[in-house]
Amino acid sequence: MKRRDFIKKGAGAGALALGVVGCGKEAEESANNTAAVASEAAGVMTAAPAVVSKTYEWKMVTTWPKNFPGLGSGAEFLAKLITEMSGGRLRVKVYGANELVPAFEIFDAVASGTAEMGHGGAYYWKGKDEAVQFFSTVPFGMTAQEMNAWLYYGGGMDLWKEVYEPFGLYPAAAGNTGVQMGGWFNKEINSVDDLKGLKMRIPGLGGEVLRRAGGTPVTLPGGEIFTSLQSGNIDATEWVGPYNDLAFGLYKAAKYYYYPGWHEPGATLECFTNKSALEALPADLQSIVINACRVANQDMLAEYTARNNDALNTLINDHGVDLRKYPDKVLEELRVLSAQVVSEVADKSPLAQRIYDSYTQFKQKAVAWHEVSERSYLNSR
Amino acid sequence: MKRRDFIKKGAGAGALALGVVGCGKEAEESANNTAAVASEAAGVMTAAPAVVSKTYEWKMVTTWPKNFPGLGSGAEFLAKLITEMSGGRLRVKVYGANELVPAFEIFDAVASGTAEMGHGGAYYWKGKDEAVQFFSTVPFGMTAQEMNAWLYYGGGMDLWKEVYEPFGLYPAAAGNTGVQMGGWFNKEINSVDDLKGLKMRIPGLGGEVLRRAGGTPVTLPGGEIFTSLQSGNIDATEWVGPYNDLAFGLYKAAKYYYYPGWHEPGATLECFTNKSALEALPADLQSIVINACRVANQDMLAEYTARNNDALNTLINDHGVDLRKYPDKVLEELRVLSAQVVSEVADKSPLAQRIYDSYTQFKQKAVAWHEVSERSYLNSR
Repeated sequence: MKRRDFIKKGAGAGALALGVVGCGKEAEESANNTAAVASEAAGVMTAAPAVVSKTYEWKMVTTWPKNFPGLGSGAEFLAKLITEMSGGRLRVKVYGANELVPAFEIFDAVASGTAEMGHGGAYYWKGKDEAVQFFSTVPFGMTAQEMNAWLYYGGGMDLWKEVYEPFGLYPAAAGNTGVQMGGWFNKEINSVDDLKGLKMRIPGLGGEVLRRAGGTPVTLPGGEIFTSLQSGNIDATEWVGPYNDLAFGLYKAAKYYYYPGWHEPGATLECFTNKSALEALPADLQSIVINACRVANQDMLAEYTARNNDALNTLINDHGVDLRKYPDKVLEELRVLSAQVVSEVADKSPLAQRIYDSYTQFKQKAVAWHEVSERSYLNSR
Repeated sequence: MKRRDFIKKGAGAGALALGVVGCGKEAEESANNTAAVASEAAGVMTAAPAVVSKTYEWKMVTTWPKNFPGLGSGAEFLAKLITEMSGGRLRVKVYGANELVPAFEIFDAVASGTAEMGHGGAYYWKGKDEAVQFFSTVPFGMTAQEMNAWLYYGGGMDLWKEVYEPFGLYPAAAGNTGVQMGGWFNKEINSVDDLKGLKMRIPGLGGEVLRRAGGTPVTLPGGEIFTSLQSGNIDATEWVGPYNDLAFGLYKAAKYYYYPGWHEPGATLECFTNKSALEALPADLQSIVINACRVANQDMLAEYTARNNDALNTLINDHGVDLRKYPDKVLEELRVLSAQVVSEVADKSPLAQRIYDSYTQFKQKAVAWHEVSERSYLNSR
């Protein structure tokens, strides 16, 4: 068989997918010779058989404005990391909200294969399955550190995969905000009654708690919040924390800035992948995609932790923002409502019940441990 | 030029180091043809030029007993992750303490090239440079989340690289314990006076604080703690937290178990690399090594967070351990001593001063932010 014939046939028969065809047997022998030479020169160095490395070009669609601090830049970080660790064999191009598809259509876009990856927050997809909300954040739920423990060592990732499986998606945690701020208001919140009648941008289970308290929750992508708040389409909003809220200029449309973010105490951002596209990658690239998400997961939390304080000072000192702590009584009542709302999700399906049970049991242990560790320390230093 | 001649010359001239030689020019042309075929077949898929992938075999020496829960298993996790993400091009074999070199000789072993990687804790090397201690943990210092923020977004990694540079080592954070436990004692600690005269295993700056309080700090590798405590060679010890302390059976040699771990509020574990060995890798493998450490950094914290509570319950319920909180007054006095000890490290060298300044300024901001976020939330839920 002639050289060219072999290669064409090999490619046509899909042998390339194994990533070991390319130069043919003759070249493999040569490579072994090369290995022998190289091995002499460098000690431990040996050479693997010659390969043709396939390259892949993927699209990542996001719910964030292009390069928005922390969130959009976190998606860019992830894309660059995959490209870098793969030596350019897998290149990921990031699209901001509405560049390829609207923010809240990325789930369907990746499920259908329009893009290979999507970067967002799981609670945006509660219309698909209410149970997804446990994988973003839960009112009065787990912190970033506790969420990661549940996901990687408490069965959380397996449950998340199970929820996304019917959509042909493979989930990954790909960022965390830490404890968020409680939100922006144009009046003081002295009792839960002050939340009544408020139309507030607050997604996920936190939104349901607001509804239970007499408000009207609205889910808007980040890029639409400021205009909605300034035009009076909504009365109040939460977004993330000082670093992000400063970037959107929310202080121009509301004065009171409340903490702590009881409704999002450690919001996990996600990067889901079209499962068929992921499985079509060689094993090393699959591992790179999955683990790049883990690096991004940690990196975003580090960025917020590093940048929120300066931004908070700017908001207070340069923009006259009025920083307030939610009164204890408000937090107490919201905690009671939250427990109701969260437990009701369990009734939606047997899978939702299993996720609720797993989350709740894990949280109980994590909270108990953090009573003697994180919390005890933060109150001692 | 004959095929074999070309390859031998290519290898001899070090052209292999670029990772693009192997099948020679003829094969590159063939590969381009292959690419065209593959591209037609799979849309976005294209093929890079044929390469011979070199493989590398590295040794990782550690300060931990082989596969010791969390620490040793974290080193194994890291090694497997590098092997997996590199598709076997870089294989890392882990050696427990004393298998290849003694625990506290791994720094020199990697500096000299006996091994390529070392997994330990930076404070073990304070004899090399006192400033290294800021990169493990500081008494009354930053938590895991704050340390990562400083390292990745506050200039910490650059300073760490600067400290290790003269030794030919490249540092990386590769694990975190979270807030540790305060230690094991055979008597109650009701005042700082109760620490006087105690010979206690407690490394790093925490050890210096104990000395200032009238005790005698001892630095022992983990594997020697239990025997030393049981034989009376030391009177007290700290180690990590319930999951690790249970594994060493420390409850058999001491009864009182104090919290919180004021001396190690988020100990960063490290994996340093022989810098020449790292730089000899192709760029993608360098990135894989560095980012695998970041995954391991997060993973270990998740594991401890998930497992400490069950272990603590076992210690209390099955082994009769007496869990105690350090009295507030003891913590207050230790905090004052800690501030003195830590600031004195700054006097050791101009670099130590810069690291102290960077750490201290960053901590101030991180603590301020966590007053309205993490701490406020943990006290509200």
